[in-house]
Amino acid sequence: MALTEVSSNKVFGGYQKVYSHDSKEVGCSMKFGIYLPPQVEQNKKLPVIYWLSGLTCTEANFIEKAGAQRYASVLGVIIINPDTSPRGLNIPGDSDAYDFGVGAGFYLNATQEPWKNNYKMYNYITVELQNIINSNFEVAEGKQSIMGHSMGGHGALICALKNPGLYKSISAFSPICNPSECAWGIKAFTGYLGPKETGSWSDWDATELVKKYNGPPIELLIDQGLDDKFLSEKQLLPENLIEACKATGVPAVLKKREGYNHSYFYIASFIGEHIKYHVDALLK
Amino acid sequence: MALTEVSSNKVFGGYQKVYSHDSKEVGCSMKFGIYLPPQVEQNKKLPVIYWLSGLTCTEANFIEKAGAQRYASVLGVIIINPDTSPRGLNIPGDSDAYDFGVGAGFYLNATQEPWKNNYKMYNYITVELQNIINSNFEVAEGKQSIMGHSMGGHGALICALKNPGLYKSISAFSPICNPSECAWGIKAFTGYLGPKETGSWSDWDATELVKKYNGPPIELLIDQGLDDKFLSEKQLLPENLIEACKATGVPAVLKKREGYNHSYFYIASFIGEHIKYHVDALLK
Repeated sequence: MALTEVSSNKVFGGYQKVYSHDSKEVGCSMKFGIYLPPQVEQNKKLPVIYWLSGLTCTEANFIEKAGAQRYASVLGVIIINPDTSPRGLNIPGDSDAYDFGVGAGFYLNATQEPWKNNYKMYNYITVELQNIINSNFEVAEGKQSIMGHSMGGHGALICALKNPGLYKSISAFSPICNPSECAWGIKAFTGYLGPKETGSWSDWDATELVKKYNGPPIELLIDQGLDDKFLSEKQLLPENLIEACKATGVPAVLKKREGYNHSYFYIASFIGEHIKYHVDALLK
Repeated sequence: MALTEVSSNKVFGGYQKVYSHDSKEVGCSMKFGIYLPPQVEQNKKLPVIYWLSGLTCTEANFIEKAGAQRYASVLGVIIINPDTSPRGLNIPGDSDAYDFGVGAGFYLNATQEPWKNNYKMYNYITVELQNIINSNFEVAEGKQSIMGHSMGGHGALICALKNPGLYKSISAFSPICNPSECAWGIKAFTGYLGPKETGSWSDWDATELVKKYNGPPIELLIDQGLDDKFLSEKQLLPENLIEACKATGVPAVLKKREGYNHSYFYIASFIGEHIKYHVDALLK
């Protein structure tokens, strides 16, 4: 699998790089960001955190706005952040809205035409990209965690819940928690998976997956700004996820942040806390 | 002077806001960013650091990419970052190039047609904006410092050198140091000030201003990435400024950063060090 270096910038003693590669799963060229902290120069195998971004993002938003490199540099962890959908395919309808198609892959495997051949971001993240990272960079085997924001927070939750044991820790900033019950999710699931009655939505909804989780102990760290307009518009529904966790005994922590909204300013304020949380789990 | 709040985002316990206002000096509506750290809620009068951005930037780049809020939050300092030129005037030729006109005001007062009525960023920064800040926010009288990047690093230097005692400390990331001798500067000075022979260039060139500086002791902190392509292209010329400082006894510190380029990744890596430097001077 050939990787092409798109950019490389020294930051906090390490390097923030962007690579592109041809993806079999999604059938186009894909980019991802990787932060390599200064500890890579000591030929150490380092743990990895995956970051999944939200609607409309490319790999650039997290790299430029989250300020994660500062913490990863100190703690010696690699951070990978992929794009949010296939791009450049020009599938009819893929660019009509910010919340479906390009920039809105929802980290699932589509089953419906015309999406099912390319919109397989779930396979891309959990299999293909992971293999690329493991075979091209000095990562510590099995030492990986996952986090994300909004659509990507949900992506982190389902990638973890559908793959018990694959990630040592899981966290999400203002995640969509129950897409089967919110406008964004209903639109995306209907388009990618078909109608609720026949589309196996519960296989791709974090709140539903918690109810049937059957694996090693897992903790879900949910972070939520209380001035988030998408919270009040009922797009996120963390209460549904927390309720499902309580009912099934899956430990969940909900951190409520007074005055914070849905933006990268909010993410930047708490990303250090999340990275520390993951590194603590990864070094256990 | 009426201020309009354009945006407000909680970040690191304080608020990153953007305001717009009508400017008399530059004859159009102008935006600036202001970070108000959590300490403002204690009704304290706080010190202020001005940040001047480089070519092509609006107020947004620094706000989103520098990660300065984290340090300002801890140290209790307000950070103001204005735009880089007038906007929306549609002066013929103001949008033909990235390095002249819109986004490229060079923090001087133009004397040539058609620029002289609006391209007065020097007056805007050192008088009008400062008055707006002092009369609308709880700032500690006389406790202000200035820093900037590239074109804005030069702006910080000339604002300080032309106003002895106005700023408690001065620093610059990869500044244009001697615009009379580099391509960017020659183009801008010729356009805004007229030919070198008649345009009083030495009144607007940091290296020339150092040679005639006559005020209270001043120190210039210059920060420079060594993988900066504009350094090797001789747009920045820090050696000329340092030489002038040595010749005239103005203390200058040149921090050389191995492997860093001209980007906000470089700025983010060292902005905390600069903010600490300024706050130390401001609290003296």
